[in-house]
Amino acid sequence: MTHSTLGRETPQVSAREKVTGRALYAGDIQLAGMLHAKVLRSPWPHARIVGADVAAARALSGVRLVLTGEDTPTRQWGVHRKEHRILASGKVRFVGEEVAVVVADDEETARDALDLIRIDYEELPALISPEQAMADGASEVHEGTRNLAKEIRIARGDVAAGFARAVAVCEATYDAPSQYPGYLEPMATVAWMGGNGRLTVWTSTQSVFLARARLAEALDMPVSDIRVVQATTGGGFGGKIVEEANSLICALAASRLHRPVRLVNNRLEDFQGARASVPERIWLKMGVDADGLIVAKDVRIVAECGAYAGLSAEVMLVSAMRSDNMHRIDNVRTHATLVYTNNPPRGAFRGFGGQQMGFALNSHLAMLAERIGLDPVELHRRNAIRSGQTSVHGWQIGSSGYVECLDQVCAAMRWSERRARPKDTGVLRQGVGMAAAMHVSGNRTLGNWDGSTVVLKLNEDGRATVLSAECDMGQGAATMLAQICAHELGIPLAHVTVSAPDTDSSPYALGSLASRVTIIAGNAMVRAAREARAKLMLAAADRLAAVVDELLLADGRIQVRGAPERSATLAEVARHHIFRHGGEGLLVQASFDAATVMMDADHFGNIAPGYSFAAQAVAVEVDTETGRVKVLDTFVSDDCGKAINPLGVHGQTSGAAVQAIGWTLYEQLQFDSGRLMNGNFADYAMPTADSVPAIRSGIVESNEPNGPYGAKGASETAIVPGAAAIANAVYDAIGVRIHSLPITPEKVLAGLKVLRETGHA
Amino acid sequence: MTHSTLGRETPQVSAREKVTGRALYAGDIQLAGMLHAKVLRSPWPHARIVGADVAAARALSGVRLVLTGEDTPTRQWGVHRKEHRILASGKVRFVGEEVAVVVADDEETARDALDLIRIDYEELPALISPEQAMADGASEVHEGTRNLAKEIRIARGDVAAGFARAVAVCEATYDAPSQYPGYLEPMATVAWMGGNGRLTVWTSTQSVFLARARLAEALDMPVSDIRVVQATTGGGFGGKIVEEANSLICALAASRLHRPVRLVNNRLEDFQGARASVPERIWLKMGVDADGLIVAKDVRIVAECGAYAGLSAEVMLVSAMRSDNMHRIDNVRTHATLVYTNNPPRGAFRGFGGQQMGFALNSHLAMLAERIGLDPVELHRRNAIRSGQTSVHGWQIGSSGYVECLDQVCAAMRWSERRARPKDTGVLRQGVGMAAAMHVSGNRTLGNWDGSTVVLKLNEDGRATVLSAECDMGQGAATMLAQICAHELGIPLAHVTVSAPDTDSSPYALGSLASRVTIIAGNAMVRAAREARAKLMLAAADRLAAVVDELLLADGRIQVRGAPERSATLAEVARHHIFRHGGEGLLVQASFDAATVMMDADHFGNIAPGYSFAAQAVAVEVDTETGRVKVLDTFVSDDCGKAINPLGVHGQTSGAAVQAIGWTLYEQLQFDSGRLMNGNFADYAMPTADSVPAIRSGIVESNEPNGPYGAKGASETAIVPGAAAIANAVYDAIGVRIHSLPITPEKVLAGLKVLRETGHA
Repeated sequence: MTHSTLGRETPQVSAREKVTGRALYAGDIQLAGMLHAKVLRSPWPHARIVGADVAAARALSGVRLVLTGEDTPTRQWGVHRKEHRILASGKVRFVGEEVAVVVADDEETARDALDLIRIDYEELPALISPEQAMADGASEVHEGTRNLAKEIRIARGDVAAGFARAVAVCEATYDAPSQYPGYLEPMATVAWMGGNGRLTVWTSTQSVFLARARLAEALDMPVSDIRVVQATTGGGFGGKIVEEANSLICALAASRLHRPVRLVNNRLEDFQGARASVPERIWLKMGVDADGLIVAKDVRIVAECGAYAGLSAEVMLVSAMRSDNMHRIDNVRTHATLVYTNNPPRGAFRGFGGQQMGFALNSHLAMLAERIGLDPVELHRRNAIRSGQTSVHGWQIGSSGYVECLDQVCAAMRWSERRARPKDTGVLRQGVGMAAAMHVSGNRTLGNWDGSTVVLKLNEDGRATVLSAECDMGQGAATMLAQICAHELGIPLAHVTVSAPDTDSSPYALGSLASRVTIIAGNAMVRAAREARAKLMLAAADRLAAVVDELLLADGRIQVRGAPERSATLAEVARHHIFRHGGEGLLVQASFDAATVMMDADHFGNIAPGYSFAAQAVAVEVDTETGRVKVLDTFVSDDCGKAINPLGVHGQTSGAAVQAIGWTLYEQLQFDSGRLMNGNFADYAMPTADSVPAIRSGIVESNEPNGPYGAKGASETAIVPGAAAIANAVYDAIGVRIHSLPITPEKVLAGLKVLRETGHA
Repeated sequence: MTHSTLGRETPQVSAREKVTGRALYAGDIQLAGMLHAKVLRSPWPHARIVGADVAAARALSGVRLVLTGEDTPTRQWGVHRKEHRILASGKVRFVGEEVAVVVADDEETARDALDLIRIDYEELPALISPEQAMADGASEVHEGTRNLAKEIRIARGDVAAGFARAVAVCEATYDAPSQYPGYLEPMATVAWMGGNGRLTVWTSTQSVFLARARLAEALDMPVSDIRVVQATTGGGFGGKIVEEANSLICALAASRLHRPVRLVNNRLEDFQGARASVPERIWLKMGVDADGLIVAKDVRIVAECGAYAGLSAEVMLVSAMRSDNMHRIDNVRTHATLVYTNNPPRGAFRGFGGQQMGFALNSHLAMLAERIGLDPVELHRRNAIRSGQTSVHGWQIGSSGYVECLDQVCAAMRWSERRARPKDTGVLRQGVGMAAAMHVSGNRTLGNWDGSTVVLKLNEDGRATVLSAECDMGQGAATMLAQICAHELGIPLAHVTVSAPDTDSSPYALGSLASRVTIIAGNAMVRAAREARAKLMLAAADRLAAVVDELLLADGRIQVRGAPERSATLAEVARHHIFRHGGEGLLVQASFDAATVMMDADHFGNIAPGYSFAAQAVAVEVDTETGRVKVLDTFVSDDCGKAINPLGVHGQTSGAAVQAIGWTLYEQLQFDSGRLMNGNFADYAMPTADSVPAIRSGIVESNEPNGPYGAKGASETAIVPGAAAIANAVYDAIGVRIHSLPITPEKVLAGLKVLRETGHA
């Protein structure tokens, strides 16, 4: 075990090819005879397609194919509801909706051909806000839906009785807007229909098997006729699970040609085609008793999915109930409504609804703490769910590092000292705020299964190849699997290769979502490696004429205990496993399916094998003249159970914290009548290095009993607390409570003006 | 089972992509940034390299890399002996030996750069025949070898006593020359060193794992750092196992660059670089008793491996003893010598030494039959080994269709009638001849293992993906695996996809050699499919609330016997196998290792799980004025145990028979002082459609007890009898016995002249 990197700071196994620029992203792929596609998008938020003339485009020299909605399979696809064709047919429902695709010898020709396509639209009334969509007599985005995509009601305990016991009750409405996933690699796909009638799709994805299933549905083909291979993926953040249109359109075009087709989004196209996060308006009412214990919680959510439901219903469900589980509360009630509009469709995003409610809940907890004169950290501490407890919705918390995260954050940020400091009175005013969060590690939602299979091959040189369909999109899945494999086999990390997910050759797995890979696939990897080790030991016993119990594996050798001269290298044993009577290549498979349940009809049940916690505190400086908020310092504490790779956990924590800062202070998708106005990185302001402080973070190892070596997920939790921590710090600095993100200078200045006018400044 | 194609004429699963021209051969692969390589070859058969100046080549615009032998890893590689570097270092040993490689932006520049390389040679005495090489005082091709690459002596029984019992003894010397494999696709490779430091090699190969092992040895890299993927392979015939240089050189070049490198042999380069078959001079003495039983056999072989031993020693061993096992004989003695020369290295070729001895043995049997006044078919029949018998070298013949093959051939060719027909006396004279052969199906030679593992995945649509490393190079391995999988699962053939061999994802297997794939991998496929079926049945029982014994699988559904309303499609059951508590994707692996033994030091032991037999008769017409021999008609009977795909068996039989006709009548590698003079298809005359009759063939199903459904190999046996059958027919036609192939018009005319001069004409 001397080589093990388990628990040590470990550069990702893909680091070298990425930093040298030699990793192959889908857009880098070139194949013989490859053609290039471009997509025509709707200029209208809502319109009937009354005619399409593609003759001129088809006639352009170099154009190989032009398809419109009428050329697509009639079978509709969709995650929550079957409501899509691959290209719009009959109607367009948002600006940017994919209307036609051109395939040509080069991208320039394809782009020129787009200009030659004439689509006749008959404009329809556009619903560009949930209020419009829910108004009496509103037109319908999808017929017969009354623009209601989903409604959820959950009630536990006795909320009225709870409020009756409360010594303080707060009620407020919060606006949590949409955020673009902002991965550095826009969606890109190369697809090719081989001579054998099978379609191969190289794409940027978080899940090859879900991508395959969706392609099969949308193209109306058997899944077995489709092969999806994950190209190097430059970030996903939930946006590359099963909702993007790029891979569908590319595959559709390729299925009609016998040459490879490449479709790479430019940044504007990616803004138009990607699923940004679900915007929610959250009304929250909570009460606490004299001890600061939450006695009642009442929630109403109006969420907007835009033109198609996608995964938004599942996201809204998370907003509606996940954060209930982090506290020891009995009385909760939620009513959540998902509304169709003619805005672009929204969907999965890192945090998956957690951050929307996290903003509301943690703002609210700060207000309640203030009302009863308690340090908000203490309020969190008193309500925090602990290891071994079961939450109000039936979640069994195997490990909770909630309190330890609070402690770590307070120490690192000198919380008490900073809070006790006299208030600034000048132009620049500093404040501190904090928030906490929980997230799932895994989630039994898809067909009552949350499993993964890992295949391990030991090669003749004693090194290992791991096959898994869990996608690494930068978060470190491959490194985690390699670390576990190397650890269990006692070989160097460099002796493990994790193959790229490929539906033809990889074992089945759901993919990288719900922070599930470390706990689910990690457990499968442990099992596979231990089985491989056991097989190696048996082969070594045979070779060394010993019994397994006598054998020791260390430093790439297996030896008879006390008789070092009776030993063999792993390479020798691996060869012996093959080359003998009844031998075979050492190939093992192992699966793990979490011992969880699906939520019942009442949304009750233990859905995940582990739950991660995080806490964050920030110090901000508010410029009372310009309204500008600057994050001076922050510390995020992440309870990932056990940090298999602390470097990776810190990377995830830092990235999530920065993404939260972006959402809280800078990023705003600007629409004008449903039309995105700032679909580029100049106008859509993501945080740059000079707009965030060095992100400090710490790890809490709560030792999850269901996790490999105690580990749980560490990819998403840390995005959840940031917004409220900043909002609370702004309030601490200037006494202005911002309920609507982003916290722009205008809102700050408006808040200060109100304070002045009401005599509070 | 209604869909099963087992035993039915089945077009190959790759037929469609091949006939539509869309199959991707290695030479068709294009990758981003791909460079092109060309190889400089030795003009001398034997010379010392005293200097190399590559400066001008390196300076040429567009040239990216120039390597000579001094730049290659110093570790030597080789199958029989470690005697190679990838590029010649110090010395060249044959004309065409690879001396340098240039990589450039395009092939033309690379070729131009070859002309700028100056290699200074100091010529050494060239040994261009075994006689020269074995002469006293001859120089040495490899130091310290005395040009002896291998010597084999085998003796069983009492040969002298046997001859003493003989009523007829024949003694003669035969010359069996070398044949170029003549696949339509010359060797081609694309190799790429990825940013992760791993080398991927797409190549035309019969074995990805043996290719990987050889690349690792020659490049001095761990096997795990190399990935070999089989591109569509346009024929192998033994020439693409582990001896060709193309893939090594391409991989070497790619390992020094960070861009993909393509190396495609043109036909001349392929003639120069390929391993043609091993030329042998065979002295044979045999005696029969009054009943026509063979009482003694004495063999001496001088085989020539050329400049490097490669697999030639193994080929010579087959010549030396395999055909002994087809007869019930007790007294045999063999002395075989493998000699180095400065001719190009020789090696594995379809038939693997069988055809060289097959020519001698069957010519000899015809002579002996004549001597004792017996129909040669009857001589074969009396000596033929039968099912259940053990041969002189310990081979256990589970199934022998030898006699049935003779019967089938005689019936189809009207053998007795044709033999009884009066001799022609005009210019054109017809004759008939026959011969018989045996071959192995599998061969336990490599590290005491002759196994294969197959992985089967059942996808959510109830269709199957098969992973196997057994390469299809046109012989039908993929079709065979797909047929078995479909048969066992009761699904249509089109519902099975057999993935291309890939060392990263395929389970371990030896590859396509020794006609082993049907019997070895076929058995593994049966096991895997039956295990998958059992798992499906368990999942169906769970889903249908039934017990497995009640269930029936038919037509893609599993139903409860007698209750058709309680049923589920395979797709539903496959999904149920995943999506349930403790579920997983249906993935099974199964291995088969033949219950055989390695030959002992005395070359004794049952090396193969099955042995195939064949017989062939031909009718020829000899033009006594021109000496031209024309094959008028032929029938080949192949005992493949059970024809899983009769269309495939007939295809293999026809191809082998034509290749034998080419070797017997037309093909001649012409050398001048070690220099190949006819390395192209215009001057190297392979048989064309108008030079062979329609090949008629039949199948004998002897039902091999070790084979899947009784099957054994059918790829090689049919090449073995052709030469002798033709030679015997020529003798029947004109009374001239040709002992030296090819049977050219010159030799026929010379034979006729001798007959006339000795008064026999």
